[in-house]
Amino acid sequence: MHEQFENIESIKIPALDAILGKKFPVLNDGFIRVIDYMGGDEAVVQAARVSYGKGTKQVHQDRGLIRYLLRHKHSTPFEMCEIKLHIRIPMDAWRQWIRHRTANVNEYSTRYSLAIDSAQNTKYDEWRLQSSDNKQGSSGFFDSHLGQVLSEEEANLHKNLKEIYLKRVEMGMAREQARKDLPLSTYTEAYWKIDLHNLLHFLKLRMDLHAQFEIRQYATLIGQEIVSKWVPITWEAFTDFSLNSTDFSGLEMQILKKIIEKDEISANEIAKNSGWLEIDKNGELKLSLERMEFEQKIITLGLIPNWKA
Amino acid sequence: MHEQFENIESIKIPALDAILGKKFPVLNDGFIRVIDYMGGDEAVVQAARVSYGKGTKQVHQDRGLIRYLLRHKHSTPFEMCEIKLHIRIPMDAWRQWIRHRTANVNEYSTRYSLAIDSAQNTKYDEWRLQSSDNKQGSSGFFDSHLGQVLSEEEANLHKNLKEIYLKRVEMGMAREQARKDLPLSTYTEAYWKIDLHNLLHFLKLRMDLHAQFEIRQYATLIGQEIVSKWVPITWEAFTDFSLNSTDFSGLEMQILKKIIEKDEISANEIAKNSGWLEIDKNGELKLSLERMEFEQKIITLGLIPNWKA
Amino acid sequence: MHEQFENIESIKIPALDAILGKKFPVLNDGFIRVIDYMGGDEAVVQAARVSYGKGTKQVHQDRGLIRYLLRHKHSTPFEMCEIKLHIRIPMDAWRQWIRHRTANVNEYSTRYSLAIDSAQNTKYDEWRLQSSDNKQGSSGFFDSHLGQVLSEEEANLHKNLKEIYLKRVEMGMAREQARKDLPLSTYTEAYWKIDLHNLLHFLKLRMDLHAQFEIRQYATLIGQEIVSKWVPITWEAFTDFSLNSTDFSGLEMQILKKIIEKDEISANEIAKNSGWLEIDKNGELKLSLERMEFEQKIITLGLIPNWKA
Amino acid sequence: MHEQFENIESIKIPALDAILGKKFPVLNDGFIRVIDYMGGDEAVVQAARVSYGKGTKQVHQDRGLIRYLLRHKHSTPFEMCEIKLHIRIPMDAWRQWIRHRTANVNEYSTRYSLAIDSAQNTKYDEWRLQSSDNKQGSSGFFDSHLGQVLSEEEANLHKNLKEIYLKRVEMGMAREQARKDLPLSTYTEAYWKIDLHNLLHFLKLRMDLHAQFEIRQYATLIGQEIVSKWVPITWEAFTDFSLNSTDFSGLEMQILKKIIEKDEISANEIAKNSGWLEIDKNGELKLSLERMEFEQKIITLGLIPNWKA
Repeated sequence: MHEQFENIESIKIPALDAILGKKFPVLNDGFIRVIDYMGGDEAVVQAARVSYGKGTKQVHQDRGLIRYLLRHKHSTPFEMCEIKLHIRIPMDAWRQWIRHRTANVNEYSTRYSLAIDSAQNTKYDEWRLQSSDNKQGSSGFFDSHLGQVLSEEEANLHKNLKEIYLKRVEMGMAREQARKDLPLSTYTEAYWKIDLHNLLHFLKLRMDLHAQFEIRQYATLIGQEIVSKWVPITWEAFTDFSLNSTDFSGLEMQILKKIIEKDEISANEIAKNSGWLEIDKNGELKLSLERMEFEQKIITLGLIPNWKA
Repeated sequence: MHEQFENIESIKIPALDAILGKKFPVLNDGFIRVIDYMGGDEAVVQAARVSYGKGTKQVHQDRGLIRYLLRHKHSTPFEMCEIKLHIRIPMDAWRQWIRHRTANVNEYSTRYSLAIDSAQNTKYDEWRLQSSDNKQGSSGFFDSHLGQVLSEEEANLHKNLKEIYLKRVEMGMAREQARKDLPLSTYTEAYWKIDLHNLLHFLKLRMDLHAQFEIRQYATLIGQEIVSKWVPITWEAFTDFSLNSTDFSGLEMQILKKIIEKDEISANEIAKNSGWLEIDKNGELKLSLERMEFEQKIITLGLIPNWKA
Repeated sequence: MHEQFENIESIKIPALDAILGKKFPVLNDGFIRVIDYMGGDEAVVQAARVSYGKGTKQVHQDRGLIRYLLRHKHSTPFEMCEIKLHIRIPMDAWRQWIRHRTANVNEYSTRYSLAIDSAQNTKYDEWRLQSSDNKQGSSGFFDSHLGQVLSEEEANLHKNLKEIYLKRVEMGMAREQARKDLPLSTYTEAYWKIDLHNLLHFLKLRMDLHAQFEIRQYATLIGQEIVSKWVPITWEAFTDFSLNSTDFSGLEMQILKKIIEKDEISANEIAKNSGWLEIDKNGELKLSLERMEFEQKIITLGLIPNWKA
Repeated sequence: MHEQFENIESIKIPALDAILGKKFPVLNDGFIRVIDYMGGDEAVVQAARVSYGKGTKQVHQDRGLIRYLLRHKHSTPFEMCEIKLHIRIPMDAWRQWIRHRTANVNEYSTRYSLAIDSAQNTKYDEWRLQSSDNKQGSSGFFDSHLGQVLSEEEANLHKNLKEIYLKRVEMGMAREQARKDLPLSTYTEAYWKIDLHNLLHFLKLRMDLHAQFEIRQYATLIGQEIVSKWVPITWEAFTDFSLNSTDFSGLEMQILKKIIEKDEISANEIAKNSGWLEIDKNGELKLSLERMEFEQKIITLGLIPNWKA
């Protein structure tokens, strides 16, 4: 390691270079595009190998190493890659996005400049019903007729709010104050720079079905169109070990073992001792989120619990 | 340091305990209140003294130590204090607030719950004019008559937007979507937890005259009503060495020296070589922000530059 | 929510107050003690409920809520609790500790003060053998006789290094330079402040059997003696859903399903297509970490795979 | 901003590309080299201009904008640039380095691999004396004769410690334990990745004369040989407005004004009221760090205070 000069070059990913600057449309008027990046799968491997003081670089071994690192949550090598995106997004979704603190951000200023002249409109078939079983989600859509009425009303509202904003500005009102009644659906833009480890964490949370529809469109696009091209081996490992994984608690493993062994009595007993099988006044099983989530997991294994309270 | 038990107690600050939970009003319907805290001036000193392996604790010395730490930007001892605030603030101001990433946040969810039924209204004498010399600021107010018209229009707008929101919710629309056209002036609430070092950084930026009026009200209140009671010695030092300090660049110190020495020729020459004294087509001094900011600083020293381009 | 004064008090945890300042010994001359803290289980619940705009506080519901938050990786409510520890630890273990960046630190300065006059010694039955199957671990111990020789040699070495250090200092050498040849086993001390979410992450990694013995002693003590008293409900949930959980990848769930269904042919085929069953020149199954880790997991479910390459 | 494809390319800095991978030697056996980077002065400007929604790009204006951003501590545009360095450094200096938390790190593992076979040796003319006026610094050197003795003793010590380490490893001792008595002067290596804003903060602290000699060598090299080539305009602005700047507190500005006006009585009075002019039992001015630091600052302006206690 003592030679004074080893000629190296920046890591370049042709598949990502090919889409640099390309605007991937999202929602009615948003987009994502890649501005620049540093590193790739190779840089993850390179960093992990600093630890071992050697430099073997066979593709086969690289894949195994990356999968090992991701599976065992060795996060620092993934922090060695960095990407910078240009995002155009409704402020409402941006409010959720910005809660991820481990990123660098430069946002379009509506104190300095005129607000972006665009708001997220909703098509007649996109109005969502409140979910009945998930207090913070949506499920299903309004019928087209009602949707049409809502969309028209929204179009009028956006037009009205825009006129008020522009009138205020033209009167000479400070832009920082004129904007106060713009709707949350107004678009904003930002440069957003983040390392690969934290980006994967963001995608894990925001590609999830519980994430709001709007931000999920952005996250899914980043994952499928950008990260998959940038770091294909890492993306595959992330899909296997994070996006599609299932977690069993210590308790759940015990019950699962008994169910596999067809020992229903023991399975029932453990569940009972853990408070999963409480009875209400009518003699029915009380709602237990832990129990219900467990049931959903073992159904994918082809198993059905047979609780006796 | 080897005794196995030294009875200690949590640091308590009676002046802060006295206002725990008290809602300090801000704007028309916002507030700030302290929920909990850890440490105080004493904890700053305690941490700094870990470094020296001793524990002298005379108030006089404590003050000197804290002032030394703050003056020399030794930030880690100030990180040993933590405070948790409950904040009610218009979303527009919150969008700026949340850009400070080194804090912990739990915000009121309008996916799960109904949006807060309140928006920041603007009184007839609070409508601000766009600043002419600062592209992102405001300066002066609209006259009362016009203000009255604007305030009425705003009141109607808020009423209208609120009705649309509630109608959507009552129709069964998902709350996460119903909210999309709420105005940025809608109030939100959050628990916000931060260490003293990062809080002071926040205050430095947001108590500044260039910060937007709304967030400045919150920052000033936190500084003057809360931090001043929590850590009075640190607050005094922060006021002296950070809030009220003036910074001269290497170049500015050279020019200042020449001006003090009444050596106008040298002052002029250095300024010229630094590009401060360029001439436009009409033979007038071009606008130079660096030069103008320097002039403002030395005016507070009773000095006036006499440039010759 | 509009009353201007709601009297509240700092959250106090008597079980933690009772051990405030108590030095829990670790290794031959290290310790951990709690200096101060903010919040507790109640503060986690309080923060989570900001989201819902209400304040029900029944213990039964609190437990369910905390378990839900931890199970679904809602981390922000756990960030609302903070703890400050005083740690005495060999520099070697501290080098690993300090890699966790989301904490506040004030370390004893050996530039300013004399180095701590103590090094971690190793008893004759504590000398560990290099693990043969884990390149970065240890397994088993040297025999007592050899251990005795090693311990004596170490004692002499520490004595020698200490004398050289003190001689240098007495000669007038700068302390910052005199220390350069102190052994990594030299003790250091620090104040370490961290929020509960990040502390749990630290414990997950450092209580793990793959963590080095020394740091594992500290982490285990923090978990079992401190966190368990501070936030008993969170600690129980963390034990269930994080410390003792088992994670199956999407692929592993598919194979597990087939094994449970006793469909060995399909199980084998999926494994083969995933590269788990490659054969070496001698017709033996090649080593596959992914396959071996899967086997270990299903053995705890009472299952044994029957691969056919 | 609506065209769907704008062809862009990664920002490349030829002057930095030319030294990519080049090992700049530091101390007797350390080095720094650039592995990769993202962005440059142009990216700072690009990010700042997101705010204004336009894209003018004249070099003259770029320089003014960068200087404005740095002078007014607008840090986010500088966070848009990232650099990755490979560092070889004694563990003792690395212990200070790693205290900067806003960076990504992968360090050489001495659990997995053999420790690096090199320690920082000290030449006969490099042994430093403890500073008498700065408790944590050094000043001046031991004479050559004594230096020679110290260097020889150190060489023997390093040889001895290395032999003990290797003997332990050869006996089969776990590497994680064998290393415990290596000296702090042992070299380690790491990949270190950081954004430009945080790198400048690091340089401000570690190029300072109060930083320890060893780490100062690394910081100075990074600044002068690397950052100056990577972002020449930012580097110039940083030198002017940060490295070489002088800060006056509110109080100091008041006293300075009086001194410039030759109003010694008022200057004295303000200083007295601020506790700068306390008298000890012998009627002498007590030591006051604040006063002394002020004196040093105004001496560079050609002024001398004339205190009367």
